[in-house]
Amino acid sequence: MISLESIRDAHDRIRPYIHRTPVLTNHTLNQRAGADLYFKCENFQKIGAFKARGGVNAVLQVAQNREGTAITTHSSGNHAQAVAYAARQVGMPAYIVMPRTAPQVKKDAVRDYGAEVIECEPTLEAREQGVRDVIAQTGAVLVHPFDDERVIAGQATAAKELIEDIGTDAPLDTILAPVGGGGLLSGTALIAHYLSPITRVVAGEPEGAADAVLSFRSGQVEKAPFVDTIADGLLTTLSDRTLSIIRQHVTDILTVSDPEIIAAMRLIWERMKIIVEPSCAVPLAVVLKHPDRFAGQKIGIILTGGNVDLGKLPF
Amino acid sequence: MISLESIRDAHDRIRPYIHRTPVLTNHTLNQRAGADLYFKCENFQKIGAFKARGGVNAVLQVAQNREGTAITTHSSGNHAQAVAYAARQVGMPAYIVMPRTAPQVKKDAVRDYGAEVIECEPTLEAREQGVRDVIAQTGAVLVHPFDDERVIAGQATAAKELIEDIGTDAPLDTILAPVGGGGLLSGTALIAHYLSPITRVVAGEPEGAADAVLSFRSGQVEKAPFVDTIADGLLTTLSDRTLSIIRQHVTDILTVSDPEIIAAMRLIWERMKIIVEPSCAVPLAVVLKHPDRFAGQKIGIILTGGNVDLGKLPF
Repeated sequence: MISLESIRDAHDRIRPYIHRTPVLTNHTLNQRAGADLYFKCENFQKIGAFKARGGVNAVLQVAQNREGTAITTHSSGNHAQAVAYAARQVGMPAYIVMPRTAPQVKKDAVRDYGAEVIECEPTLEAREQGVRDVIAQTGAVLVHPFDDERVIAGQATAAKELIEDIGTDAPLDTILAPVGGGGLLSGTALIAHYLSPITRVVAGEPEGAADAVLSFRSGQVEKAPFVDTIADGLLTTLSDRTLSIIRQHVTDILTVSDPEIIAAMRLIWERMKIIVEPSCAVPLAVVLKHPDRFAGQKIGIILTGGNVDLGKLPF
Repeated sequence: MISLESIRDAHDRIRPYIHRTPVLTNHTLNQRAGADLYFKCENFQKIGAFKARGGVNAVLQVAQNREGTAITTHSSGNHAQAVAYAARQVGMPAYIVMPRTAPQVKKDAVRDYGAEVIECEPTLEAREQGVRDVIAQTGAVLVHPFDDERVIAGQATAAKELIEDIGTDAPLDTILAPVGGGGLLSGTALIAHYLSPITRVVAGEPEGAADAVLSFRSGQVEKAPFVDTIADGLLTTLSDRTLSIIRQHVTDILTVSDPEIIAAMRLIWERMKIIVEPSCAVPLAVVLKHPDRFAGQKIGIILTGGNVDLGKLPF
């Protein structure tokens, strides 16, 4: 059980190491959506994504509780950089298991934070074996990308800041976040439940990785029928832990197609003049797809990250 | 003579119609530059560029002084949108003469602000003749993109906000701005002279449109030896008016090559996660090219705009 207290503690703990990111609004996008949109810009966060929050919260506690002398995780994405960044803040070595097929720029970014990259075959089995090997050899502590209460409490602080910035006089009707493994979504749903219970939390998911919507309906962790989407940050399935929180506190999960995601991404780039990754555009795509559900509302949107390969843009 | 008072008046006049844009900092870029950089983000300004400031200041005065019942200008870039936007604020018709070769997206943007686009051949003569025709037919008042004291006073308000945000305890050592026709640069130099005389103002110019640096040295308006640069907002030459202010209050003009501009632009996109147009990356390129001149300084950089064609990126 992740309490309000533990999220507040997480926020106090990570505050020196993260940015309090701005909340931006945009006249044109409000007109398109027929709603008042408040974008929480985690693309401006340390390492370029909200993952810094959960990673720092977990790693700081590992260090403070002397649970181990090194950190490990496996990730091909933002969590790898988050853990590398966090480990450097506490001066601990970090061993990041990454598929050898991961983009060179991502491996370089992890190394730039002083972590050691251990390459493996691009399968989940190889990645998990890689982590087990690291643990056996170094005694490192695993920081899971989402199935970890400390990580979830850290991710919750993004929506906490958003709710604080909006204030209590006219609270948000809805907060939207994308869902992959569910760390951000479950943290967002919990903190909204604690601080702004009138606010609904709705998730967006790509049609090409539509596992969470199935799990949400059936009550058990399901796999996606197929995986094929540009939103490469949202490929993971939920865990029992994140599904349980999501079933309790999330109102709905809505899916969008890749063309809808790319159109929303382009709108954010062109109109807001900020760089967001495809996964990050999923909630706006949901709002634009369902004007009937969101028109006239005051809506918070977590923009999750801005790490894109500029050489491989979808437009 | 553009007085401090006239810049303050301009600021009060335009405030309801423009954004007070944020000043952003970035740890990685500071490390690269060996300096403390403060980016004034006019890419987040109305119409996506600082030009909204000068356009609004001029058009509001035309309306208030009843100088005419319509507005005209010629521009293929941000000034066209700025004048169209400003005219709409005061409910006046605007006639924007644009070369027929201008990108469709730019013509559409001007029409979206309710202005009429008059297409002409892509020569300066045809553009000026187009404006004369409009004036003859409609009695519209010309708002020149830079050779106009009201426009210069408006552009000066970007640096005014930057200087105000930095405060007086530890003022900027240098402010950098790009130079095209010199409206922004002369306004920036004037307001720095008035409010922060310890601050040097330095301009950046593309090697492929290096007229201002020649004019700065010779004391008369020169043409560029050749015009070939990605920085399409900086192609214009100075006017006697802007050259005179620049010679009096600008410390130096430094040139950078297109590869240096593109590299700086990419750094801003990748590290700051914001969208800037090539012209806008010129000052950072200057700082990175001359570490000897700028290392250890506290530097303000005007990021002028973010209107790029996402289908035609240089990387």
